[in-house]
Amino acid sequence: MATRDPVLLTPGPTPVPPAIRQAMAQPMIHHRTSEFQAILKEAGTGLKEIFKTAQDVYILTSSGTGAMEMAIANILSPGDEALVIRGGKFGERWAEICEAYGVTVVAIDSPWGTPLDLKQVSAALAAHPGIKAVFSTLCETSTGVTFDIRGIRKAMGSSGALLAVDAISGLGAEPFAMDEWGVDVAVSGSQKGLMLPPGLAFIAFSAKAQEAATKSKSRKYYFDLALAKKAWADTDTPFTPAITLIIGLVESLKYIRSVGGVDKLIARNQAQADGIRKSLLGLGFEMYADPACASNSVIAAKVPAGVDGKDLLKRLRSQHGVIIAGGQGKETGKIIRIASMGAIGPQEIKAGFDALEKVLSEMRGKVPDHA
Amino acid sequence: MATRDPVLLTPGPTPVPPAIRQAMAQPMIHHRTSEFQAILKEAGTGLKEIFKTAQDVYILTSSGTGAMEMAIANILSPGDEALVIRGGKFGERWAEICEAYGVTVVAIDSPWGTPLDLKQVSAALAAHPGIKAVFSTLCETSTGVTFDIRGIRKAMGSSGALLAVDAISGLGAEPFAMDEWGVDVAVSGSQKGLMLPPGLAFIAFSAKAQEAATKSKSRKYYFDLALAKKAWADTDTPFTPAITLIIGLVESLKYIRSVGGVDKLIARNQAQADGIRKSLLGLGFEMYADPACASNSVIAAKVPAGVDGKDLLKRLRSQHGVIIAGGQGKETGKIIRIASMGAIGPQEIKAGFDALEKVLSEMRGKVPDHA
Repeated sequence: MATRDPVLLTPGPTPVPPAIRQAMAQPMIHHRTSEFQAILKEAGTGLKEIFKTAQDVYILTSSGTGAMEMAIANILSPGDEALVIRGGKFGERWAEICEAYGVTVVAIDSPWGTPLDLKQVSAALAAHPGIKAVFSTLCETSTGVTFDIRGIRKAMGSSGALLAVDAISGLGAEPFAMDEWGVDVAVSGSQKGLMLPPGLAFIAFSAKAQEAATKSKSRKYYFDLALAKKAWADTDTPFTPAITLIIGLVESLKYIRSVGGVDKLIARNQAQADGIRKSLLGLGFEMYADPACASNSVIAAKVPAGVDGKDLLKRLRSQHGVIIAGGQGKETGKIIRIASMGAIGPQEIKAGFDALEKVLSEMRGKVPDHA
Repeated sequence: MATRDPVLLTPGPTPVPPAIRQAMAQPMIHHRTSEFQAILKEAGTGLKEIFKTAQDVYILTSSGTGAMEMAIANILSPGDEALVIRGGKFGERWAEICEAYGVTVVAIDSPWGTPLDLKQVSAALAAHPGIKAVFSTLCETSTGVTFDIRGIRKAMGSSGALLAVDAISGLGAEPFAMDEWGVDVAVSGSQKGLMLPPGLAFIAFSAKAQEAATKSKSRKYYFDLALAKKAWADTDTPFTPAITLIIGLVESLKYIRSVGGVDKLIARNQAQADGIRKSLLGLGFEMYADPACASNSVIAAKVPAGVDGKDLLKRLRSQHGVIIAGGQGKETGKIIRIASMGAIGPQEIKAGFDALEKVLSEMRGKVPDHA
């Protein structure tokens, strides 16, 4: 990376490698051509490998929230009951969309930064046997917590409810296996582990979820699974797709294959995340997330006492071109969040920590030793 | 344009100029920064000039269809009645989305390729006084017809119905003036006159439409105007936006200003469209759209007798890299459609017609004179 380029260590968007950017900068092509059909096919095949599913993965032109809405609007109807596991801003979004669609929400409010008490899941389902779907988050970007999806599925026991997972942050960065884990709807986005610009969302439905979709009475059009399925059968999308981003997606999938596949990428992220945690502790930060549930996609840490979190972010950006994220919602100004996913590598992390060390020393009133 | 590049003469996507592609290929930036806020502000200001409205123009990450859905989902409620003017594939889409949202559709089926009989509009409103909104298309891409939006507004007389216009094809390419023409909801997309890749949609609401939106009982979230308005007040979008496409949008708006503004661009398109029509007639094509309503964004022509329309398109593409569109729906194989909007200029049109002449001669069994 050239020194003039910003160092993006945010949990979405993540940096987009030059080869992907160049692929997207080629002259525009038309989407109703055999050339684009081949691209769409390749993208679909690659996404199935990343989702670890035998189901089709539909590519949407929307942010990840659009795919979350597609999940709810297709598997539920107004008046249905759903269990939403909330432990941060994105868990809350599941509930907001459910409510917008007239779905009654039973919520588990897992304290931010802590592991989910799985007993709450079985208890909620026992108390509300009418629950038709359970919504969870793979990696809660706002807190740096990874939820135990396999544990949730197990805790659901013999409940007939569907399990829908927001894997927007986390897919391609943390272990995830849609079919093996019994996930019925998995959604993701382009700007996280897949190292693309934002603008695409992805969604896959289990056979059971597809069956439920045929019975949904929710009103929808742009996010109608039936339209997506019909078009996909002809290697097409129901509406003009974001062509350049899908071209970039194929490059990203090629890159992931070139490094040995998604599991290798996930292992690299984990090692990086461990390194980031160690460096943060060395600089006097305290981890925000309990180690039992700490994410390897995004690492959240409490801003040390006496340091102004907002000022820290501002100095990093203005003086060093290093962009990290702050806290969201009730944690605004109190935590920082550093991503370890997608194309983020040793060079970016080193640049980020060199800057962080300098800025912290400055803010604590002393010059760093090696300055 | 380098000779190896394809010549894209399709009515969406249209070619994306190199300067715009390069701007989008820069290293990724984060959307919650003052840098991106400035970009968003500039994009919003430029879009108001193109829409010719004093209202805010919201930028959506979706295809144009998403903005059409946002129009319906915000100004109407299930059980409402709407008048849809259909004269091609995209007029039909308004009706499909209305039906998906439980809106009762009164339709005017204007024969494809002909001007709308405005008396039908006043008659439909008189027969159905409960109609809450009228939906029309500025330029019907599937037929190359431009609808007389001012005429429709006039024909609506004293009806209190809202007027919603799909200006996806046509905006930046044909005259359009949201406020002056009394349009209540205008929607558009990125991949037509604005010479960008597909992936962004735009929408603006009149004061009256905004008032109606506060009363809508339609369920929505991703396309909820209230969320868009709230975010926009903070120069933000409610969900992670398609950052690179918005960076491209600012470049496109700069380009439009550099050629003297949108009216100059529209005048250029009109002159080009006249030239395209003349060349097509010279090659033995017959115009598809009645001259009284012929679009200047996309020119549709009937494939000459004895020529296989599908084969024509295939030869143009495989032998010359020239991409033009065929017919859609019932006109598949029977018409061709050539765009004259966005960044399409004399060079692309010449390359297109050189190829068209050669292919036609070949197909008619003779070699062109200048071969």
